[in-house]
Amino acid sequence: MTDKKKISIAVIRRLPRYYRYLADLNKAGVQRISSGDLSKKMGVTASQIRQDLNCFGGYGQQGYGYNIKSLYSEISGILGVTEKFKTVIIGAGNIGQALAHYPNLSARGYDITAIFDINPAIIGSKINGVEVYHTDKLETYIAKHKTDIAILSVPFDQTRALAERVAKCGVKGLWNFSPMDLQIDRDIVIENVHLTDSLMVLGYMINHKD
Amino acid sequence: MTDKKKISIAVIRRLPRYYRYLADLNKAGVQRISSGDLSKKMGVTASQIRQDLNCFGGYGQQGYGYNIKSLYSEISGILGVTEKFKTVIIGAGNIGQALAHYPNLSARGYDITAIFDINPAIIGSKINGVEVYHTDKLETYIAKHKTDIAILSVPFDQTRALAERVAKCGVKGLWNFSPMDLQIDRDIVIENVHLTDSLMVLGYMINHKD
Repeated sequence: MTDKKKISIAVIRRLPRYYRYLADLNKAGVQRISSGDLSKKMGVTASQIRQDLNCFGGYGQQGYGYNIKSLYSEISGILGVTEKFKTVIIGAGNIGQALAHYPNLSARGYDITAIFDINPAIIGSKINGVEVYHTDKLETYIAKHKTDIAILSVPFDQTRALAERVAKCGVKGLWNFSPMDLQIDRDIVIENVHLTDSLMVLGYMINHKD
Repeated sequence: MTDKKKISIAVIRRLPRYYRYLADLNKAGVQRISSGDLSKKMGVTASQIRQDLNCFGGYGQQGYGYNIKSLYSEISGILGVTEKFKTVIIGAGNIGQALAHYPNLSARGYDITAIFDINPAIIGSKINGVEVYHTDKLETYIAKHKTDIAILSVPFDQTRALAERVAKCGVKGLWNFSPMDLQIDRDIVIENVHLTDSLMVLGYMINHKD
């Protein structure tokens, strides 16, 4: 086993992409690939690839390249892709509902067990087979049902209070789609998602294409 | 004016976050901030902040810090946040519909002018006030209505063909939510979004919290 603690978060953030590429190659029956070919495929420099993969002992061999199956299984292990996470969605607006229907969540082991909202029109109904509860029931629900991750997709002014509430219940991670870079003083891992950040980068690249 | 071409894409990818923080501080009437305070607020090292902001002449002064208003306006200019982009959505599934309802798009200047889908049940209807056309009409529509960006949220096997079609029509940028890292041999800027990459990072961090 490699010492997983030594891998920096910057490298970890790049691993899902390697994971997806290697999964495709593995599925296609490809057995090995050079850092040069992987570099062309992924649009990353070969030296970046060698540096990243060396971090966890994914050494390529000169003139042979990387063994795809073993690299894929190593990265899968580091990312813990076979782990299962019990997940709830808080806020069933457009983003929350889209995520409730997003097939990749359950495919990746994120099992949506409950949805919470304050809109009386949808409480008691099901979204993609998952029951919608009033947000008041959050603490009671989590006390009874082990919950690893909460997906937060609520308006700005409700974000912090809800994050504090789920952290207090012992939820381990928060996937935050609310328009706020959330940092709270509690024992919970927070991943903030800002869709428009990537859109602003696209806008920049369009304006500076030359 | 700073020479904007010298800014690396890695720095550009970090700018939207600075932009959001500085916008908040500016709105709150704060006039200056040290790299140390900005560092604490953003959870990035102070040296990274100084390095990033130095890239485009955002020099802080020793013992004074950064002037928020001027830094904010400099970053706004680089990112082109006041630009307007005529945008269409291709694929009105869950992600496409959520994006059609996402208030941040129009707020950031991305004006959704049309939605395309192949589902007869929704063609001719409106989603959040925007008309849904059959995907067959894509070329005709774009020929008549200037279109800067296409948001692609279609199944894997339709992604490449649709990307080729919009590129051929002269669309400048593609915001791709399809589960494929798209690279095509045409003159179009592509920004691939993989929501589950960030979720995998969250899963990793939960498993390695100690």
